[in-house]
Amino acid sequence: MDEQSELKLREEHLCHGGAVRFYEHPSTTLGLAARFGLFLPPAALAGEKVPVVYVLAGLTCTDETFLIKSAVLAEAARLGLALVAPDTSPRGAGVPGEDTDWDMGTGAGFYLDATQEPWRKHYRMESYITRELPALVEAAFPLDGEKRGITGHSMGGHGALVHALRAPAFWKSVSAFAPIVHPSAVPWGEKAFSAYLGLDRATWRKYDTVCLLEDGFRHPSTILVDQGDADQFLERELQPWHLEKAAAAAGQPLTLRRHAQYDHSYWFVQSFAVDHLRHHAAILGKVG
Amino acid sequence: MDEQSELKLREEHLCHGGAVRFYEHPSTTLGLAARFGLFLPPAALAGEKVPVVYVLAGLTCTDETFLIKSAVLAEAARLGLALVAPDTSPRGAGVPGEDTDWDMGTGAGFYLDATQEPWRKHYRMESYITRELPALVEAAFPLDGEKRGITGHSMGGHGALVHALRAPAFWKSVSAFAPIVHPSAVPWGEKAFSAYLGLDRATWRKYDTVCLLEDGFRHPSTILVDQGDADQFLERELQPWHLEKAAAAAGQPLTLRRHAQYDHSYWFVQSFAVDHLRHHAAILGKVG
Repeated sequence: MDEQSELKLREEHLCHGGAVRFYEHPSTTLGLAARFGLFLPPAALAGEKVPVVYVLAGLTCTDETFLIKSAVLAEAARLGLALVAPDTSPRGAGVPGEDTDWDMGTGAGFYLDATQEPWRKHYRMESYITRELPALVEAAFPLDGEKRGITGHSMGGHGALVHALRAPAFWKSVSAFAPIVHPSAVPWGEKAFSAYLGLDRATWRKYDTVCLLEDGFRHPSTILVDQGDADQFLERELQPWHLEKAAAAAGQPLTLRRHAQYDHSYWFVQSFAVDHLRHHAAILGKVG
Repeated sequence: MDEQSELKLREEHLCHGGAVRFYEHPSTTLGLAARFGLFLPPAALAGEKVPVVYVLAGLTCTDETFLIKSAVLAEAARLGLALVAPDTSPRGAGVPGEDTDWDMGTGAGFYLDATQEPWRKHYRMESYITRELPALVEAAFPLDGEKRGITGHSMGGHGALVHALRAPAFWKSVSAFAPIVHPSAVPWGEKAFSAYLGLDRATWRKYDTVCLLEDGFRHPSTILVDQGDADQFLERELQPWHLEKAAAAAGQPLTLRRHAQYDHSYWFVQSFAVDHLRHHAAILGKVG
């Protein structure tokens, strides 16, 4: 198929009987080459169509981070879950200043479509992860698009929650690690949204989990969120109590677990990542 | 105690109920600052003295590599095993050319004590990992020196096998991933040993697993080795059949597992690392 012919395999490694692969392809959405990681469990290598969880990484990370650091591939192999790991922003867009700050521009796409100059041409990670990438990988590999979940860490947790709430029939299961739940009200989000979306805060609401819940968006499955209490970004950027309150007011099923002494790192993510895969597998196993 | 006061904690993260820590300390053996990683399982954090496995990384790696990429901390936590991860060479020794090649000098200490100029002042990883580091960490943390194992990957597998054979009462359990088993006869070893040890090959034998077995060295416990058949270094550098033959001739118990399609990467290591921890735990559990 056409999509497959544009996929350039950069690396492949057998792992837990499955395959870890890193691809590059020309993204029409981003107008640039884009990279993603893929884990195919043994069942998929044997030709079976398998459920798939998209894993979104956080600020400064890449398509490699989650697959290398989440320590979750043994369980993905066992459960028969594929993982798709997109990059966190376009790369090489050439926007002035995009490489100056670690929380804006490169590595910090926030999984939205920018509407403002000079970002709007290339910074279109929303369309990329919700349309181009699923269409591409689900045509090229034995992935069951009817059993599709999404998770992420920090900025990636924000992306997972936002897109699952806005398209619950598309993303049938959702979870997050230490997500940015109310970006409109915290420094990371205010900085990025002002630049990418402009100063009219009404346009920010569709990229803000708490606002989406306030505005009537719901997900039929329980949202699983883990959060470390020693997270260095807890008070300033993450503020999970806003999610707790909004979900309760909205009647959105939410399991928010707080973990004493855990910080924001992938050492925290890997400590609970197996639980997340089981959460997705349990929901996706009942679908279709 | 004195040792502890010289330990500078660089990072600490809770992980699977245990603690991942990265330390720096002034090494008297190396004459330089040295770094190591440490995983303390929950039992150790609760004050219990626990068995400890030293994990040696391969060429180009650091004190962080094995802990980040082996995906083994959940099992170490469950088994109550501590892990100590030294660096792969001294850093900043200032030897001319030490940063030129990835298989010599920095990142490539080969776990030996160099006897030749200009290496012999600082390149003393043998004394560091077999004496200074165990003395330091076993005084500073609740580690049971009577229950001490060693493992490693590639160059680190070489280090684990060599030192376990030479001091089987010190290293009570041993395993390796894709080890260099006969460095005297392969390009990596010939290059490094010529520089570090000089051209008299008789001096190389104590750093060569196959030669040690030929020379009468034995380990009382079974040696576990995993090797991928799609390893890009299999034929040129690793040649596990030499180990198989030497162990058989020597009556050394060896479990050498060959794995079709697995390569040399940590994706291979993580696929079998849990088996290695269980191997160590089973042997160390019967000691003392």
